[in-house]
Amino acid sequence: MKIYHTGDWHIGKVFLHKSFIDEQREVIGKFLEKVESDMPDLVIIAGDIYDKSIPTVEAVGLLNETLSKLVMEHKRKVVIISGNHDSADRLSFGSEMLEDKGLHIVTDVVKSISPIELEDEHGKVNVYAVPYISPMKARAVFPGEEIKDHDDVARVVIGKICEKLDKSERNICIYHGFVTNSGERLQESESERPLSIGGSDEVSAEYFKDFDYVALGHLHGPQKVKTERIRYSGSLMKYSFSEQNHRKGITSVCLGEKQVGSAEMSCNIEEIYPSRDMRIIEGSLEELLAEDLSEAEREDYIMARIVADGELYSPKDKLDKVYKNILRIEIKRDATRLEGEKAEFSRANFREKSVLELFRDFYAEVTDMELEGSKEEKLASLLENMDMEEF
Amino acid sequence: MKIYHTGDWHIGKVFLHKSFIDEQREVIGKFLEKVESDMPDLVIIAGDIYDKSIPTVEAVGLLNETLSKLVMEHKRKVVIISGNHDSADRLSFGSEMLEDKGLHIVTDVVKSISPIELEDEHGKVNVYAVPYISPMKARAVFPGEEIKDHDDVARVVIGKICEKLDKSERNICIYHGFVTNSGERLQESESERPLSIGGSDEVSAEYFKDFDYVALGHLHGPQKVKTERIRYSGSLMKYSFSEQNHRKGITSVCLGEKQVGSAEMSCNIEEIYPSRDMRIIEGSLEELLAEDLSEAEREDYIMARIVADGELYSPKDKLDKVYKNILRIEIKRDATRLEGEKAEFSRANFREKSVLELFRDFYAEVTDMELEGSKEEKLASLLENMDMEEF
Repeated sequence: MKIYHTGDWHIGKVFLHKSFIDEQREVIGKFLEKVESDMPDLVIIAGDIYDKSIPTVEAVGLLNETLSKLVMEHKRKVVIISGNHDSADRLSFGSEMLEDKGLHIVTDVVKSISPIELEDEHGKVNVYAVPYISPMKARAVFPGEEIKDHDDVARVVIGKICEKLDKSERNICIYHGFVTNSGERLQESESERPLSIGGSDEVSAEYFKDFDYVALGHLHGPQKVKTERIRYSGSLMKYSFSEQNHRKGITSVCLGEKQVGSAEMSCNIEEIYPSRDMRIIEGSLEELLAEDLSEAEREDYIMARIVADGELYSPKDKLDKVYKNILRIEIKRDATRLEGEKAEFSRANFREKSVLELFRDFYAEVTDMELEGSKEEKLASLLENMDMEEF
Repeated sequence: MKIYHTGDWHIGKVFLHKSFIDEQREVIGKFLEKVESDMPDLVIIAGDIYDKSIPTVEAVGLLNETLSKLVMEHKRKVVIISGNHDSADRLSFGSEMLEDKGLHIVTDVVKSISPIELEDEHGKVNVYAVPYISPMKARAVFPGEEIKDHDDVARVVIGKICEKLDKSERNICIYHGFVTNSGERLQESESERPLSIGGSDEVSAEYFKDFDYVALGHLHGPQKVKTERIRYSGSLMKYSFSEQNHRKGITSVCLGEKQVGSAEMSCNIEEIYPSRDMRIIEGSLEELLAEDLSEAEREDYIMARIVADGELYSPKDKLDKVYKNILRIEIKRDATRLEGEKAEFSRANFREKSVLELFRDFYAEVTDMELEGSKEEKLASLLENMDMEEF
């Protein structure tokens, strides 16, 4: 059985005032192309389908279109869980009616305790799709259990699943959360919203040891946890500059025959590249402006980190001429350079300088030339005639 | 073919700060009971499914549950159009996937030009489901056409349908708007939102003359337009006090064999009663308080119109003891009574009266007794000792 494991689509995401719906349409389009050529038996989307509990009309449209293609055109089986960004109730619209079309949208944790039963040439595959649920809501669902944090939620829910697990069959678990192996450091991103304020988000990977594959959602970088069988697919595209070095794509899993202990399994990442990458550039303004770039690189989403000691004159206007999609500019004050030749042009002593002196510094900074004598005279006479109280 | 025609469910409606979701669950439950016992071949919901373009989670849940029951449990064919209150894009989620489950959610006016084809023992039935579209949006969809108002929209869309209409077959049209027959006065309600500001909402019934049945939505009172075949089902429950005398329910239509001109047709209203009615009570406060009421009548949603000439002392508190669900209180000044015995207690001359006189009037009004001499003396001495500037 070939499985496409993806998640954290965050459809409708806005980052730094920029809507990424067009980029999402692009990467989801590339995902659909891979589905069409590879024809996986099962597509898993492990939560955070939408970015907001009330998604935009465009986001609803894109998901609708995508699921329709998967189910109607490609006739693939699809299992979706809701993540911490999704409204379970909104996402579940139509879910019961869509089940026998092969689309399972699981948003009710109680339902996740019974498997979705699939089959291939090696026999049955049980899919346990566990949607995100907060500890508070989980306490209401399982009143007899002691649930303080996310680890307790997983202990209770996965525990109930494992009570009835037939280990002679192949079993897949889908889960949305922060699953860790003690001592192992996971790759986190700035675009992941913490699951709890103050309390611990972490869930022990130990609970998942009896599954043949665990398809995780929540972290945006593709990675394994503890074993090859417990994996985050990561998001389909970068949602923060902290992800600039991530390899984004789909985790493609081949699940073979059940052996003693667990099923044969192999996986690889099917990478997906958007036409516009997201990356950080760093250097002096001159260095950033002088970069030798391809047309495509000019179009990338850029965070420019300008290393500077002096004042900068319209850095955004200048960078915009070279980079078409700058999302953020940061100025990094370079302490080592401050010691050097340009140190006199600092804010430190500007109050002691005359307006003429300040302008002379500014002119030199912007043009890299000294203010000529004749220009300086003109300026001086201009300044004399002005009401200096305005300064 | 038996058809259940309903519409204007306005799920999630809030009226006078009161959510009606529980009442909606109740009347939709009664509708489902009728479906279960009557098993109509087709259920039509003629727009304004939700009350808001972004429905609440509860509203989404109730519609989802209802449609799941209709389609999964009762296996009925269902055709829905979006109305002026619905977001076409949000309502259409899953629509393509749900079509072969027998659920058609039509929100795209272009699709409405091709029929949904059904069949019964007498042959084919073509259903043209025309969603609401504003004249502005219609101009973008049909750029070659001159569209100024809703009548133009209907002329163009219904015109395109009629171009290809096979009049030897039976044809049903579903439409959401203000369809009128010139000279005929329709029953309107306060809960219907005007379709245009300033311009005309009206659409000529003439366009629909070739259909065997026209299932209309928008007006909340069940009524026919021009002929028996063009009908508003009205809403399932009252959404304003202007509807207090409406008979609410489902229009149940029997569509028989095609004859020369049109098909055999008969219809009746299957009434639905919520456990709490909505009605206006009117009379003096004493009359309203003295009404002989059943337990159920005490629970009704009430607008109390108190006919009064003098001041009223805590009318809401008093009425709340008798009527459990008062949504609005209006005071109706009775000009005829003002001439009578209580006329002296009016606001007109209160500035000329002393505080003691004002209190004497107030006491008489509230208690229906004269202020006793001893009490009046006490009050007078109290008032003397007070700093009257506070008044």
